Amino acid sequence: MSLDTAAVKPMERLSAALEADMERVNLLIRDRMASQHAPRIPEISAHLIEAGGKRLRPMLTLAAARMCGYDGPHHVHLAATVEFIHTATLLHDDVVDESDKRRGRPTANLLWDNKSSVLVGDYLFARSFQLMIETGSLRVLDILANAAATIAEGEVLQLTAARNLKTDEDIYLKIVRGKTAALFSAATEVGGVIADAPDDQVRALFTYGDALGIAFQIADDLLDYGGASAATGKNIGDDFRERKLTLPVIKAVAQADAEERAFWVRVIEKGKQTDGDLDHALVLLARHGAMAAARADANAWTEQAKAALQAVPPSDLREMLIELADYVVARIN
Amino acid sequence: MSLDTAAVKPMERLSAALEADMERVNLLIRDRMASQHAPRIPEISAHLIEAGGKRLRPMLTLAAARMCGYDGPHHVHLAATVEFIHTATLLHDDVVDESDKRRGRPTANLLWDNKSSVLVGDYLFARSFQLMIETGSLRVLDILANAAATIAEGEVLQLTAARNLKTDEDIYLKIVRGKTAALFSAATEVGGVIADAPDDQVRALFTYGDALGIAFQIADDLLDYGGASAATGKNIGDDFRERKLTLPVIKAVAQADAEERAFWVRVIEKGKQTDGDLDHALVLLARHGAMAAARADANAWTEQAKAALQAVPPSDLREMLIELADYVVARIN
Repeated sequence: MSLDTAAVKPMERLSAALEADMERVNLLIRDRMASQHAPRIPEISAHLIEAGGKRLRPMLTLAAARMCGYDGPHHVHLAATVEFIHTATLLHDDVVDESDKRRGRPTANLLWDNKSSVLVGDYLFARSFQLMIETGSLRVLDILANAAATIAEGEVLQLTAARNLKTDEDIYLKIVRGKTAALFSAATEVGGVIADAPDDQVRALFTYGDALGIAFQIADDLLDYGGASAATGKNIGDDFRERKLTLPVIKAVAQADAEERAFWVRVIEKGKQTDGDLDHALVLLARHGAMAAARADANAWTEQAKAALQAVPPSDLREMLIELADYVVARIN
Repeated sequence: MSLDTAAVKPMERLSAALEADMERVNLLIRDRMASQHAPRIPEISAHLIEAGGKRLRPMLTLAAARMCGYDGPHHVHLAATVEFIHTATLLHDDVVDESDKRRGRPTANLLWDNKSSVLVGDYLFARSFQLMIETGSLRVLDILANAAATIAEGEVLQLTAARNLKTDEDIYLKIVRGKTAALFSAATEVGGVIADAPDDQVRALFTYGDALGIAFQIADDLLDYGGASAATGKNIGDDFRERKLTLPVIKAVAQADAEERAFWVRVIEKGKQTDGDLDHALVLLARHGAMAAARADANAWTEQAKAALQAVPPSDLREMLIELADYVVARIN
């Protein structure tokens, strides 16, 4: 299986299988991001939401609900909820990271300003809570409120830990759950809950989303030290230049001798980078097998995601989610 | 009744009457603003929450619930919820307004940074949703999620309308409901709902909070053009220098001749202020009776707040809320 066919298939197949549902999700999103009084809200929301994002998270919710036999209306609300939470965190992330590009386009904080990004993000958070309340399920509310807290906590942790060489793999995992996996796992779990699936299936869906999110983030870390810019929209070395302690670096730092450690202190903690530093970082990552070890971790999380789905009855959607897990790491294997 | 006795009595009496409940609210707040992994969260939260704020909003919730005969545990959760939402909006407001002082102390965005203020605000929002979910009342969740959306929408509206001379009293009211009254009215309304009060009492509590919040904000606007700095912590002319279209200015602009209008365009829309402009603004406000008219509005909202409470059974707490409404405008009468 070439990387290209692996790359598009699972998302496209999911998209086709869930087309009617996604259409309703998109209508609901457009309806709820409106504001009678403040036109800047739909302007900024549309800038992000209609920028051609893959809608991966809402599709996870729809797929989980359908896989568990749901035929009510509320998986659509939950899918829109998840997309709103995701969009709100993107708006705030771009302010926090002072980003000027997202999905190949200028960010909202650049086109408008930080103020608008902060407040429109708050508005979308509030709208996401309104949407989930419409399901009438306190269990769903609990899961999504907990996810929102985990996301924010992970982001704060990243703020204080991302450039600190004491950050170990445990802290890394907490940050990754916050920035990626918590919303993935909430997206799949609430799909099962709204379908009233048995507890073991709900747990399996949580585990799938959690492991998929972690594999996804580790793959992202790896691509930054060796992925092709065209395929990912990322340039090699972005994380390095932003002095982010990603998994390959954490693994290399854990095995660094005094001289290597001094290098990492200079480029990551102190941020004093010069020409050739990225190349030297790549040499150190290779010397300690850090890329291979991180790749093995990503593959292990993928296997865990796939294994979890065995608890759910077989279906086409289940096969697509299994393929999706494979695709996440196909980019790095 | 001198302004001094009027000034301290209602809040102090409420505080004394609700002391045991407030103690539980404060314990719950301290418990829930903790974070196992990210110590910066409680540091920043405590900086605001323990800075000696008056806890007006949580007291409104406690008073409303008790007035309606509630004796369960959940008014404490709702009071903490309301304080968390308030604190989260303060953190984000200070980023948006680029403020460096709040309650006489340096702001969190100054002591730490904007990033931390944005993300810790998000964390407190998420925590507030967790707290309200613990009440198990979907009606309460609905009210508070709607309030959160109104708050954010009002803030965005303020961003685009605050320096635009087209802003009229209708838009002003929407902004004020967003920045102040929506949380006041949600605070009192959920107190009635959690106590399972009859619908007319719940509506009355909503009206009280809404009208109190609007009176409060108009009084604040007025103090900025003539209040004593010592009494309020505000300096005369802060809003003018920040080019905010507050109610007295909106009223004066509505009656401005061509020359006066050119003045307002220069100082508010264009922000080209020089020495003597504040004095000239005060002359224009006086010429059109704008201060007196805004004062009359504030008094009318106060009367509406007090009248609404007639629907609630008489009690000491009801009397204190009536006195509180009088106090809000005692500062300007």
